[in-house]
Amino acid sequence: MNNKLTLGIFGFGVVGQGLHDIIKTKNLNLAIKRFVIKHSEKKRTLPAELFTTDASSILDDPEVNTVVELIDDADAAFEIVSSALRSGKNVVSANKKMIATHLEKLVDIQHRHGTSLLYEGAVCGSIPIIRNLEEYYDNELLHSVTGIFNGSSNYILSKIFNENLPYATALKQAQDLGFAETDPTLDVGGFDAKYKLAIVASHAYGLYIAPSAILNLGIDRLGNHDIRFAREKNLKIKLIPTAREIDDKAVILYVLPKLVPADNILYGVENEYNGVSVKAAFADEQFFYGKGAGGHPTGSAVLSDIAALRYGYRYEYKKHLGAGGLTYSTDWNITVYLRYDDETLVDRLAFTSIDERYYAADFKYVIGRVNLGNILKNRELITREGIFLAEII
Amino acid sequence: MNNKLTLGIFGFGVVGQGLHDIIKTKNLNLAIKRFVIKHSEKKRTLPAELFTTDASSILDDPEVNTVVELIDDADAAFEIVSSALRSGKNVVSANKKMIATHLEKLVDIQHRHGTSLLYEGAVCGSIPIIRNLEEYYDNELLHSVTGIFNGSSNYILSKIFNENLPYATALKQAQDLGFAETDPTLDVGGFDAKYKLAIVASHAYGLYIAPSAILNLGIDRLGNHDIRFAREKNLKIKLIPTAREIDDKAVILYVLPKLVPADNILYGVENEYNGVSVKAAFADEQFFYGKGAGGHPTGSAVLSDIAALRYGYRYEYKKHLGAGGLTYSTDWNITVYLRYDDETLVDRLAFTSIDERYYAADFKYVIGRVNLGNILKNRELITREGIFLAEII
Repeated sequence: MNNKLTLGIFGFGVVGQGLHDIIKTKNLNLAIKRFVIKHSEKKRTLPAELFTTDASSILDDPEVNTVVELIDDADAAFEIVSSALRSGKNVVSANKKMIATHLEKLVDIQHRHGTSLLYEGAVCGSIPIIRNLEEYYDNELLHSVTGIFNGSSNYILSKIFNENLPYATALKQAQDLGFAETDPTLDVGGFDAKYKLAIVASHAYGLYIAPSAILNLGIDRLGNHDIRFAREKNLKIKLIPTAREIDDKAVILYVLPKLVPADNILYGVENEYNGVSVKAAFADEQFFYGKGAGGHPTGSAVLSDIAALRYGYRYEYKKHLGAGGLTYSTDWNITVYLRYDDETLVDRLAFTSIDERYYAADFKYVIGRVNLGNILKNRELITREGIFLAEII
Repeated sequence: MNNKLTLGIFGFGVVGQGLHDIIKTKNLNLAIKRFVIKHSEKKRTLPAELFTTDASSILDDPEVNTVVELIDDADAAFEIVSSALRSGKNVVSANKKMIATHLEKLVDIQHRHGTSLLYEGAVCGSIPIIRNLEEYYDNELLHSVTGIFNGSSNYILSKIFNENLPYATALKQAQDLGFAETDPTLDVGGFDAKYKLAIVASHAYGLYIAPSAILNLGIDRLGNHDIRFAREKNLKIKLIPTAREIDDKAVILYVLPKLVPADNILYGVENEYNGVSVKAAFADEQFFYGKGAGGHPTGSAVLSDIAALRYGYRYEYKKHLGAGGLTYSTDWNITVYLRYDDETLVDRLAFTSIDERYYAADFKYVIGRVNLGNILKNRELITREGIFLAEII
């Protein structure tokens, strides 16, 4: 039952190093055979014979039964993962962009080759949300999954709201701590959260939705007026992905900044922590909380996936097979706060109703109901300077 | 893959009724064939032919492939569950006392008859902690599991600390709301929490520990002096079960009131909510939160277990099979606050060190380090009037 795993690992960053440390000290019935790295000239803390730049030394080694993929490049990762799965090796990956983009193909490859791809580390660090959606929450009963999925945006927002730091300073801190990418758009633009949302939605509702079809707006246009507006109303701004069943037939998905009141469970999730709120019939609200950014939390999820492979664990994708006829929709009205510059944007968004309007020399906003599809259509316009949009819960 | 289940349900309380409601409206590939009840004379909301007092009408019906056991009586429940498992039926139960007391036997029966017993609803209502311990957290890496496992004690403590209610009033409210048993000792004496802890410890560390071997002290001796003492130090008192690996060889288990500081994640778990904190190497602290008392949260866990049986899910008890040589120990020193009456108790507990002593006419306490085994040995003495013991974290 407890099969010995021989690992080939792509990448030797924080997670790869941490994995090595813990596998060495613990009795986990695992051995690391080799690391494939990009830069052979770098100095390593481990014996040189463990490292190679040649991918085939893992992919073509019949002794390696488990591949761990921990590299940045999503396209290269897809090549590695799909060829490993095809050659009969099980794979653990934490590459959310790669998985979100290619999930349907990857599921197909797993089914055809009888191999298993696990990726708990790709979503919300150490929080075991994929497993719980896959195993525990029946799609018929699942109302919504929301949360804070991106540790670095949340770190920045915490510093702004709790310590009055300017946006740029907070971003710099997040980068220095290793929570944010060098190109921060992935994090603060809501792309990272969107990839995670696509994966979550797939395991929640049995759908494959291309990330490009999902609305994401980030916190990169957040201005001082918006911060003051939120503070005056005792609200915090959080970057929140939402997956929600709007009726028995349709699911909506989007990533937007939200104005969150103090009685919301996500209000208290601060800094690099992630939180996932699952609402289901009967169970009411469930909440999962843990560290979402940094090498160790992700490493722990990767390690749990590796450990599960010793027992032949695989995602069954049951909800995809017996899908309850759910489809993806963007035709749904939400209430938003829109700080704008040019009146034509308000016209274009075609608010179905307007609750508040405010005009001042340097600050104009409108609060009203607007269709998700209209926001998606005007995404480029909204990401321009001078515009900030946030959902009001 | 998705097998149709035909259910026979023992008990028709809040959970049984809720299950019927939700199964009726949702497309879950489940049918309820029959309820076995105790009192045939009670008026029911469903057609009479669904009800019988004859257990064999479920247990001997080959069409019923799944038994749901939702009765109070732990001995009767064990008879029902074990005979159902022996006759090839899978079983879902939420009876923590029965499971904690007979777990080793129940695992053996499952293995011998190839049947599956699931009991997520027995521990912390809707929170999927058993599955996560079973599937996600490797015992080698698991430092501790603690939390708030008993909704009714927690409700009482919340009312005392947040609304200044006297203990008796808070208890009465909890009973009126259906959170507490008519005999409250199970809840406020820490027995319910202890049964849950024994189950949790089993899935966390692969051990079978008889509940009678585990220390439990409750909140039923909590006095005004203790409440004032906690308040002055900005602490709350919570009833907290603890399972902790003290080294690579031994695990300690106990249920004690604890003085919890504001930065502890359990400090904010109030009223009937439950929270489980899991500390593991690499993952750091993970936190699961949800409703812990009441029919619906338990019902949701029962329903998830039923749904999982459609796909043949079973606990593998992997940690029991490949146990890492862990044993149960009570030889471990903890720091406690002891409000006492008679000096001989202090002598009997044989404090290894004393940090504080306080004497007044109507209030004496000592704070110091004491061995768990000594507390267990003097359990009866400590549960007498005038004595309250709580761990200091």
